[in-house]
Amino acid sequence: MAKLVLIRHGQSEWNLENKFTGWVDVDLSEKGVEEAKGAGKRIKDAGLEFDFAYTSVLTRAIKTLHYVLEESDQLWIPETKTWRLNERHYGKLQGQNKAEAAEEFGDDQVHIWRRSYDVLPPLMSPDDEGSASNDRRYANLDPHIVPQGENLKVTLDRVMPLWEDQIAPKLLDNKNVVIAAHGNSLRALSKYIEGISDDDIINLEMATGEPVVYTFDDKLNVTDKTKLGK
Amino acid sequence: MAKLVLIRHGQSEWNLENKFTGWVDVDLSEKGVEEAKGAGKRIKDAGLEFDFAYTSVLTRAIKTLHYVLEESDQLWIPETKTWRLNERHYGKLQGQNKAEAAEEFGDDQVHIWRRSYDVLPPLMSPDDEGSASNDRRYANLDPHIVPQGENLKVTLDRVMPLWEDQIAPKLLDNKNVVIAAHGNSLRALSKYIEGISDDDIINLEMATGEPVVYTFDDKLNVTDKTKLGK
Repeated sequence: MAKLVLIRHGQSEWNLENKFTGWVDVDLSEKGVEEAKGAGKRIKDAGLEFDFAYTSVLTRAIKTLHYVLEESDQLWIPETKTWRLNERHYGKLQGQNKAEAAEEFGDDQVHIWRRSYDVLPPLMSPDDEGSASNDRRYANLDPHIVPQGENLKVTLDRVMPLWEDQIAPKLLDNKNVVIAAHGNSLRALSKYIEGISDDDIINLEMATGEPVVYTFDDKLNVTDKTKLGK
Repeated sequence: MAKLVLIRHGQSEWNLENKFTGWVDVDLSEKGVEEAKGAGKRIKDAGLEFDFAYTSVLTRAIKTLHYVLEESDQLWIPETKTWRLNERHYGKLQGQNKAEAAEEFGDDQVHIWRRSYDVLPPLMSPDDEGSASNDRRYANLDPHIVPQGENLKVTLDRVMPLWEDQIAPKLLDNKNVVIAAHGNSLRALSKYIEGISDDDIINLEMATGEPVVYTFDDKLNVTDKTKLGK
């Protein structure tokens, strides 16, 4: 029975500063590094062996993956980095302090931007300095699809091709897959895997550094979900 | 003009203990970590931007690549790990102290094993506990081609398909490539790239943590070779 393990990266430097992060490439904090190593140790203790690894093109997720693989003695497995696993793009909110945003736009509006399934945040322009359109790592993307701000629905839509074309075929081939990524790209994927409704996904939280282990049958139905808690 | 950068991993724990290492998966020493980070800083200072990264399936080379990419702000570039870039397999000498091997077999014999182009070391058996035949990371290889001991010639022979199928096409497409690997897999590749004879390759040393930057013309002739020295 194939297993899929989802790992949300640990604390980043901007989590500490209470800022909207999104696609901004901030590093893990020291605590975040320890969370990643801890996740790797629990994966090793659980005897989980992977065949393929996936992560985003953001440093905090990539480093989380590397710490997890190193601690579990499988740094050598094939690894794919893709923008499809990036955090939800937070548009013009990126870089803003969350408390300051609440003062500027009101608590209710900020709550809606953070928690609603299909309301978009204020969008960037491709000309903005911080836009992904000006980042070398997205230079191979069709410029029309580079996000300037996303909700969870849009995030799910761009995660799905990765699931369909790469993850699902490997699970069907009985290979074990690990994904180290972000709160919202993993919530989106979990929504699909578990069949969670648009209304209920608001209640799903992914804890940092706590691997979630899904086991599938040969029709890709979930037969078990286990968290490797701290 | 495409660039290819070769980086030999820094000091490993067995370099410190003066042991034959080969395919044994020993970690970097603290000095080796610092060497890798230093190489990454010099790559950043030189303004080198990569499109693709390659490394072996051995931890000391993979970690060297990761430190280099992180220090030069490009941890996100696509990365391929392949056994074809592994260190030369040292057969039954793996794990043996070099001074003890000299006592057992004589200085001359050990010198020939270490330095000759085409003399094989004593071969392992696939049944030996330390054989790569029993390592999960080589489970997808045709069992008949899993090495039990290599000379530099054999090492070059198994590096070349990677050059032909993956590295050369990318350079011809004007993409910059970085390879973090091992003393002998990189000496083998350099032998081909620079057209060094079987007799002269004995004199080529790759310094650890010192990136070698090749620039090519559109027929893959070397137009420049620069070392980013310490």
